[in-house]
Amino acid sequence: MKTIRGVYEISVPLIGNMANAVVNFSTHDVSLVAIVSSVIRGGKPVTGFGFNSIGRFAQPGILRRRMIPRILAASPEALLAEDGMFDPVAISAVAMRDEKPGGHGDRAGALGALELAVWDLNAKIADVPAWSWIASVTSAEVNESECNSPEVPTYAAGGYYYEDDSLGRLQQELQRYQALGFDAFKIKIGGADLKADMQRIDAAIDVAGSGIRVAVDANGRFEVDTALAYLEAMSDRQLRWYEEPCDPLDFDLLQQLSSVTNIPLATGENLFSAQDTRNLLRYGGLQPGRDVFQMDAGLSYGLTEYLKILELLKTAGFSRSQCFPHGGHLINLHIAAGLGLGGCEAYPGVFNPFGGFSPACAYSDGKVKPSEAPGFGLEEKPELQPWLEKLREMI
Amino acid sequence: MKTIRGVYEISVPLIGNMANAVVNFSTHDVSLVAIVSSVIRGGKPVTGFGFNSIGRFAQPGILRRRMIPRILAASPEALLAEDGMFDPVAISAVAMRDEKPGGHGDRAGALGALELAVWDLNAKIADVPAWSWIASVTSAEVNESECNSPEVPTYAAGGYYYEDDSLGRLQQELQRYQALGFDAFKIKIGGADLKADMQRIDAAIDVAGSGIRVAVDANGRFEVDTALAYLEAMSDRQLRWYEEPCDPLDFDLLQQLSSVTNIPLATGENLFSAQDTRNLLRYGGLQPGRDVFQMDAGLSYGLTEYLKILELLKTAGFSRSQCFPHGGHLINLHIAAGLGLGGCEAYPGVFNPFGGFSPACAYSDGKVKPSEAPGFGLEEKPELQPWLEKLREMI
Repeated sequence: MKTIRGVYEISVPLIGNMANAVVNFSTHDVSLVAIVSSVIRGGKPVTGFGFNSIGRFAQPGILRRRMIPRILAASPEALLAEDGMFDPVAISAVAMRDEKPGGHGDRAGALGALELAVWDLNAKIADVPAWSWIASVTSAEVNESECNSPEVPTYAAGGYYYEDDSLGRLQQELQRYQALGFDAFKIKIGGADLKADMQRIDAAIDVAGSGIRVAVDANGRFEVDTALAYLEAMSDRQLRWYEEPCDPLDFDLLQQLSSVTNIPLATGENLFSAQDTRNLLRYGGLQPGRDVFQMDAGLSYGLTEYLKILELLKTAGFSRSQCFPHGGHLINLHIAAGLGLGGCEAYPGVFNPFGGFSPACAYSDGKVKPSEAPGFGLEEKPELQPWLEKLREMI
Repeated sequence: MKTIRGVYEISVPLIGNMANAVVNFSTHDVSLVAIVSSVIRGGKPVTGFGFNSIGRFAQPGILRRRMIPRILAASPEALLAEDGMFDPVAISAVAMRDEKPGGHGDRAGALGALELAVWDLNAKIADVPAWSWIASVTSAEVNESECNSPEVPTYAAGGYYYEDDSLGRLQQELQRYQALGFDAFKIKIGGADLKADMQRIDAAIDVAGSGIRVAVDANGRFEVDTALAYLEAMSDRQLRWYEEPCDPLDFDLLQQLSSVTNIPLATGENLFSAQDTRNLLRYGGLQPGRDVFQMDAGLSYGLTEYLKILELLKTAGFSRSQCFPHGGHLINLHIAAGLGLGGCEAYPGVFNPFGGFSPACAYSDGKVKPSEAPGFGLEEKPELQPWLEKLREMI
């Protein structure tokens, strides 16, 4: 019988001095979790790695004081599925023992890191890439390319506010992304006034070639008047989408915007549960075929909860092609590939060591293809290697 | 100019082997926070204490890694109000720097403990009980008794599930509360089947004398069918209220129940922000004059956010008399007294060292009166003294 030999966490600082409309990322960090199994390959225990995406801080307190001890105290059988693999549903339930309902915040990120490490571990035991394991377990229809590894549409998220020459640096930044093979971009708005932001948008369109290649992200900053003023000013730019115009839980304002917008709306990166998604679908007025969902498994209790979220979207008439998870990194690349989602965010060159993919992933024509490494392939990302090594030293 | 000399946290285990329908409390703990000021009294620095209520775990990770460093790094002037006192609004904003919107969970409890310590500190500097300081700062109309300390209507929350002789122990428990001066009670439901729970309810009514003295609490456990089945079974018992029948964020189900119930509904202890409250008010169908709100400042970013919540309730036509904060302890007693709320929960003899009030508080006719100690008077609670001492040793 497979057993879990140990679960470990380290908090890894994000490298990033950029800021969006509400947050400076220079103090942010991320929890990197290792689950060491009893399965031995090449003399070493097979180990699953996961992390809680980007943007909501490491969770060493919740992981080390609450969730990891519960898992280590559980009987080994309680953590296995009928097929003998580790069961992410059962492990999540054990990790959440004695937690009250509601309050989907930091806790959701802590479990996200842990639960995703289970998927990495299972895929490594099966010796297949995570996207393939996810597709087979969830029976998702995946458009496989000739190389048997699906290409995922992606876009380069950036366009942060820099202190000097913000407009010039924005254009240079997007040109760098173009040189890497990206043909669609997302830039921040709301960190300057409307006039300055419109200049930023037009500068971005100028590089991208058309509005449909440029999405804008207000990071939940606007109240009703500003949200509507931006909508009006942007209405003739044919933008890709207008992301998080308002507080992520202000479903009423979102519904107001939804009823008048001619730009697709995007939201969900700051909703961390199926129950919050249910409320978004009930009250937010979002439209099948138009709007975009960005819920992020690493911040939302992991893939177990994300699959519940996809089920809710399906029931409400939305397609997986409308899902573009927040967080441009290897884990979400594999999730998007394995579940046949609309695409995946990318942060080329920023939010290291987590942001961006690995050199083994092929970029072309705005699409990214995961490599054939087993699991999420985090070991192939050079920036992550020293941290994985540090984590192994704890074992 | 007053300054903050240091901020300290210890995680204190809750003493409790009882369980409700979803949670066993034996592994729970609570963050106790101290803010040490530059104000010297009797040769010692005046120090404010706060804690994050009960039921959602201590938050040493979030406090020590995120919020406390931000406060210690701020310029001293940025933490003061115009009147020279410490400013809970400004301190909250500093503690939340670089935190994204949404995700109101563990973080809300971490700031709750910290922000409430600011109120304790200010009240001690002013040398008045916290209820009096809160009333004067917020200009609440308080019904002052002759002794110049308002009496707060309260009820004994208990009726947990015990392993042996659950029915007999329930009645003995309520009789103990009666001997202490309580005339209203709350018991748990949902941890047994409907038939067994109806026996518990009738056993409680038998002790209490009438249904109006017995509230029932399902702790967010029920789906639609069970929630409605309990409502139907309980409909002729004239109960005090039916608490958290469903998931705290399932506003749609709450609205369904609200449209048919003849028992007041109570909810809110698992909503941790003004924005979540706004959604409850928009979508939950709760009724002015009938239903009960139990939002708890210690779990919800502190009193700064709780005052925003009260403002939303007022705008929606609800009265403060409909507010009974979750968490039966000294801090919420002072908040209920200072803001003229409907009342306050009490946990006599359980959830030590935080649950319950202090010997200096007078109980009579179902009401509790805070003492005249400065601040929240936590120093007067014998069970808390060793922990306050431990915290002082860290300073």
